[in-house]
Amino acid sequence: MADPLDSLRPLMASHDPPLDALIVPSEDYHQSEYVSSRDKRREFVSGFTGSAGLALITTNEARLWTDGRYFLQATQQLSDRWKLMRIGEDPSVESWIADNLPDGATVGVDPWCVSVETAQKWEHAFVKKHQRLVQLSKNLVDEVWKNRAPPEVQPVNIHPLEFAGRSVAEKLNDLRQKLNQEKACGIIFTTLDEVAWLYNVRGNDVSYCPVVHAFAIVTPDSAFFYVDTKKVSSEVHSYMTENGIEVRDYSLVKGDVVLLGSGKLNAATTGSETEVSEDGAISSTEAHLAGNDTNEESKKNSNLILADPGSCCYALYSNLKSGQVLLQQSPLALAKAIKNPVELDGLRKAHIRDGAAVVQYLVWLDKQMQDNYGASGYFLETGGTNKRKHVETLKLTEVSVSDKLESFRASKELFKGLSFPTISSVGPNAAIIHYQPESKTCSELDADQIYLFDSGAQYQDGTTDITRTVHFGKPSAHEKSCYTAVLKGHIALDIARFPNGTNGHSLDILARVPLWKSGLDYRHGTGHGIGSYLNVHEGPHLISFRPQAHKVPLQASMTVTDEPGYYEDGNFGIRLENVLIVNEANTKFNFGDKGYLSFEHITWAPYQKKLMDLSQLIPEEIEWLNTYHSKCQEILAPYLDESEMVWLKKATEPVSVN
Amino acid sequence: MADPLDSLRPLMASHDPPLDALIVPSEDYHQSEYVSSRDKRREFVSGFTGSAGLALITTNEARLWTDGRYFLQATQQLSDRWKLMRIGEDPSVESWIADNLPDGATVGVDPWCVSVETAQKWEHAFVKKHQRLVQLSKNLVDEVWKNRAPPEVQPVNIHPLEFAGRSVAEKLNDLRQKLNQEKACGIIFTTLDEVAWLYNVRGNDVSYCPVVHAFAIVTPDSAFFYVDTKKVSSEVHSYMTENGIEVRDYSLVKGDVVLLGSGKLNAATTGSETEVSEDGAISSTEAHLAGNDTNEESKKNSNLILADPGSCCYALYSNLKSGQVLLQQSPLALAKAIKNPVELDGLRKAHIRDGAAVVQYLVWLDKQMQDNYGASGYFLETGGTNKRKHVETLKLTEVSVSDKLESFRASKELFKGLSFPTISSVGPNAAIIHYQPESKTCSELDADQIYLFDSGAQYQDGTTDITRTVHFGKPSAHEKSCYTAVLKGHIALDIARFPNGTNGHSLDILARVPLWKSGLDYRHGTGHGIGSYLNVHEGPHLISFRPQAHKVPLQASMTVTDEPGYYEDGNFGIRLENVLIVNEANTKFNFGDKGYLSFEHITWAPYQKKLMDLSQLIPEEIEWLNTYHSKCQEILAPYLDESEMVWLKKATEPVSVN
Repeated sequence: MADPLDSLRPLMASHDPPLDALIVPSEDYHQSEYVSSRDKRREFVSGFTGSAGLALITTNEARLWTDGRYFLQATQQLSDRWKLMRIGEDPSVESWIADNLPDGATVGVDPWCVSVETAQKWEHAFVKKHQRLVQLSKNLVDEVWKNRAPPEVQPVNIHPLEFAGRSVAEKLNDLRQKLNQEKACGIIFTTLDEVAWLYNVRGNDVSYCPVVHAFAIVTPDSAFFYVDTKKVSSEVHSYMTENGIEVRDYSLVKGDVVLLGSGKLNAATTGSETEVSEDGAISSTEAHLAGNDTNEESKKNSNLILADPGSCCYALYSNLKSGQVLLQQSPLALAKAIKNPVELDGLRKAHIRDGAAVVQYLVWLDKQMQDNYGASGYFLETGGTNKRKHVETLKLTEVSVSDKLESFRASKELFKGLSFPTISSVGPNAAIIHYQPESKTCSELDADQIYLFDSGAQYQDGTTDITRTVHFGKPSAHEKSCYTAVLKGHIALDIARFPNGTNGHSLDILARVPLWKSGLDYRHGTGHGIGSYLNVHEGPHLISFRPQAHKVPLQASMTVTDEPGYYEDGNFGIRLENVLIVNEANTKFNFGDKGYLSFEHITWAPYQKKLMDLSQLIPEEIEWLNTYHSKCQEILAPYLDESEMVWLKKATEPVSVN
Repeated sequence: MADPLDSLRPLMASHDPPLDALIVPSEDYHQSEYVSSRDKRREFVSGFTGSAGLALITTNEARLWTDGRYFLQATQQLSDRWKLMRIGEDPSVESWIADNLPDGATVGVDPWCVSVETAQKWEHAFVKKHQRLVQLSKNLVDEVWKNRAPPEVQPVNIHPLEFAGRSVAEKLNDLRQKLNQEKACGIIFTTLDEVAWLYNVRGNDVSYCPVVHAFAIVTPDSAFFYVDTKKVSSEVHSYMTENGIEVRDYSLVKGDVVLLGSGKLNAATTGSETEVSEDGAISSTEAHLAGNDTNEESKKNSNLILADPGSCCYALYSNLKSGQVLLQQSPLALAKAIKNPVELDGLRKAHIRDGAAVVQYLVWLDKQMQDNYGASGYFLETGGTNKRKHVETLKLTEVSVSDKLESFRASKELFKGLSFPTISSVGPNAAIIHYQPESKTCSELDADQIYLFDSGAQYQDGTTDITRTVHFGKPSAHEKSCYTAVLKGHIALDIARFPNGTNGHSLDILARVPLWKSGLDYRHGTGHGIGSYLNVHEGPHLISFRPQAHKVPLQASMTVTDEPGYYEDGNFGIRLENVLIVNEANTKFNFGDKGYLSFEHITWAPYQKKLMDLSQLIPEEIEWLNTYHSKCQEILAPYLDESEMVWLKKATEPVSVN
């Protein structure tokens, strides 16, 4: 295959104006973390498949920026025409451009694939040498991409109230109060999970993320859903109409943003859906069409439009007067993160079914490892292992066992798919934090090595994410010691109580302190929010040493993972992960009347006692472990058969306080 | 006494231009936290004596801003002509001015008493209504202050190398490397402890802080010390000259900054000290006078001047072209915070003598409380108390006992004075974090109440700061439980190990988690740096939930206090405070090659076992306590007599692991 670099450079040269450089970001038009195949433009031009990265192509160079998770992988995947730029060590892309490209250089980018915040940061850096960010009217990569996948035409599905917990009407009402507060005439949503959450719909446009490629605009009296209309069944169309949402083609969003800016966007542009509700009141759609609704006065007072600078694409923003746009974090970010009681209930239930699948998998894997690999198994560490006792047809690989894990999940009620590519990793592979096994190259299971699996599913009532680390032979004292330190950190975060206002930056250290004692650490955050049948990574809060963890305090009814780890390059990796719900804590006192919070773990699967050095655990931790295990037994029982329960009882037998 | 408001307003009106408002900050010309009597202008105009606050006087209003530590005190001290503005609850002074004073209003301030950063923040807020900050050429408060204290004329003392650890030559050399790096022609120092540290001098101009009212300017080839020359003995003058430092009158600094800005400041301005060193080389002073020194070329290349925006006064900055000044944190802030081995050694020794004084005090106080108040004493909690057994002449008050504490300290080698006003507080007074007893109004000791003392001294080899909380009767179960939670937090921070790069914001939570468990907390930071025979509060690092704690990571050889607390308004207060040194930790592993750090406590005085609920302590904490107590015994023994040692042995007897 011809190198895309060779076809892109002539296009850059013949562009008007000619481009000195072209930036190809990882993101799609919605600034998504995970993108569909046809949106993997950066992967197409560079060959690097990681989820995060940015390609810069100049007339004679090609550079790829990515972060620490991917340094090794990028080195392996990039051809020698590319140079790897390590984020955190090398200068940022905008600094590099400012320092290395000539005065007045032109740098092209598809303005749909970059957020306002990022584009403005670049433009700011370019000022000093009068360089210019050129917003391309066509994506040059798409022009040269011959075998690009066709657009997805997956149907839009309604996410029923029994799972969503709040109606679209309620959500729109809250949003309009916000518009009213800010005296704004409209708000633009470009983030896929925000659109799905707001309109209570789900889709299948992006692997692992049950979202639809769509935009939304909401005004005080109308709401729009921009989507490939082929995805919208008549049932969904009626549902939208009933909720006062006008379905418009995906391609119309840009024009409508311009209309919004000039005060001319209203439902009259289609003029077809006039609805009268049951009590006879005219719906806002018609009211607005009539042009004399009660909101008219407030609308006259303002042409202010709200947009989130971190997600709104520059293409839409650039069509508005900058003074007209109030850039602030989307009000849906927090509204979505704080789960309602129905969502919380669904998440709890989904995690129980998911935990049962994980236990079934462990039971199955334990038997396979003993039968086919002569392993001493999940419980025993005595007795030597007897490698490759099995015949070739019974060979277990990282991929084959993760398929089995998926099948256990798929047998559960409301299963809709995985929530991210399963990390199924043996020995040294477990030290690669974002390891993704591929069938041709993956490792075989090994009774003498640690096995780490980090996986989750999408159920209609909730999204799951769990990591356990196990050993089917005899773990070394060092592995046990590290496992125990990770467990101590995992427990320390789980049992923390903290006042309202505490953010995830403060809490992060609790999971690290037990590792730091002996000079160990891990190079990733400790926790991320998780969606309600939505993205497995969800903001705006997180538990991390990164600066953005300061911004949003944890609040009651948020979800967050608790996943410390330890990774020893070339040897092994350990991670333990539960999903937590933030609850109000019933503390004995309430100093400062701030209200205190605590965590409720909703993930249920045993920790392997064989990997623990019990002498490192204090009584409170032993008690935590025994209580957790006893609840595991009780909660998972309805989903397990007799032999599975025998195994689980053994796995969760209490350990004694030393 | 006439209210200063009445004499100030006519001066504001007759000023050219007339002033709509006058700001009177707490700070002196050096932005000091503690100021001398004659610099307490804000206290003089408002009557409020707290250490932090800002007064705003308009033509018809007077408002005083202060922080949470002082809300109660300010309410009591301000007359009804003043309105209290609560920092954190009410708008900031600049917002209030912008929102409440008319368009184009003039706001006067003495530009010597405000930092560049603060003045610029105000001016920024004033822009929207074209308001103007007027830099007064005379301080209006000084004009109306009849009985203002005369200027201090305390001698400047040399801080000998045996305590300073680094010579002035070495310090100047480091600084000039920095100037060279930044291609700067000079740097201005206005902070008193920075000037004292740089030139290895100490003074007595401000109570509790062994500093001299002075400025410094350093250029690549000269150094200046601006001070009331009456304070400089001929010996000190010679010392300065030997070190290439020119002593100039305090009042000349402004003119010299102007000369510096125009490239004309050189030692020639005095022209009298021409020095030839032993090897016959002409000193930089004369070399510069000759006008053809080797630095000439580099000087020609730059007229850049360094200044710290947080401390440099606006009066000096305003005399320079703004493009000519590089505003950045003073390089001395970190240089001073990272103690050299001699300073560390001195600090360790000073804390041992100080600990002995504290133990002697406790022995004395224990006996007094038993003899005169019928208390069961430091060790016993059985037996009822028998109040006021004593005769009036034997009455113990918060002030009288703190005088006794001072006398124990004063008996120790190298004692120079206290490092801050002793907090000596009984029962409810202990809940006032910055409580300062006064002889007329202070409380009497009480065997039925908690007694908290937070105190420290200036020794020539180091500054100390220690808090202990004790009870001479029968503490309640609640008091014990709270004391134990504070102790757990105090220990948790003490034993932490953490990688290089960790800041005090991350560590702060460690001391709070044990309190948070039951909904308790404290409204102050957990730790501050401490000087080497300098200010008791020293930056730039701190351990706190406040945003500035993010800025500077802890580094080896810094000092920091460990002082969690719990305060129950109207009942009691608890605080435990040690001084820690940051050391490199010998961790078993060194993940990420970052190097790990740990703390060494250098404060030695027992914790009262009677106030502990041992069942709340885990084995690691019990072991920590026993080890600490055993070391206390060993370390303090040389300073105590036989009966004091009997007491200390009992106080430090190991408790058994439950």
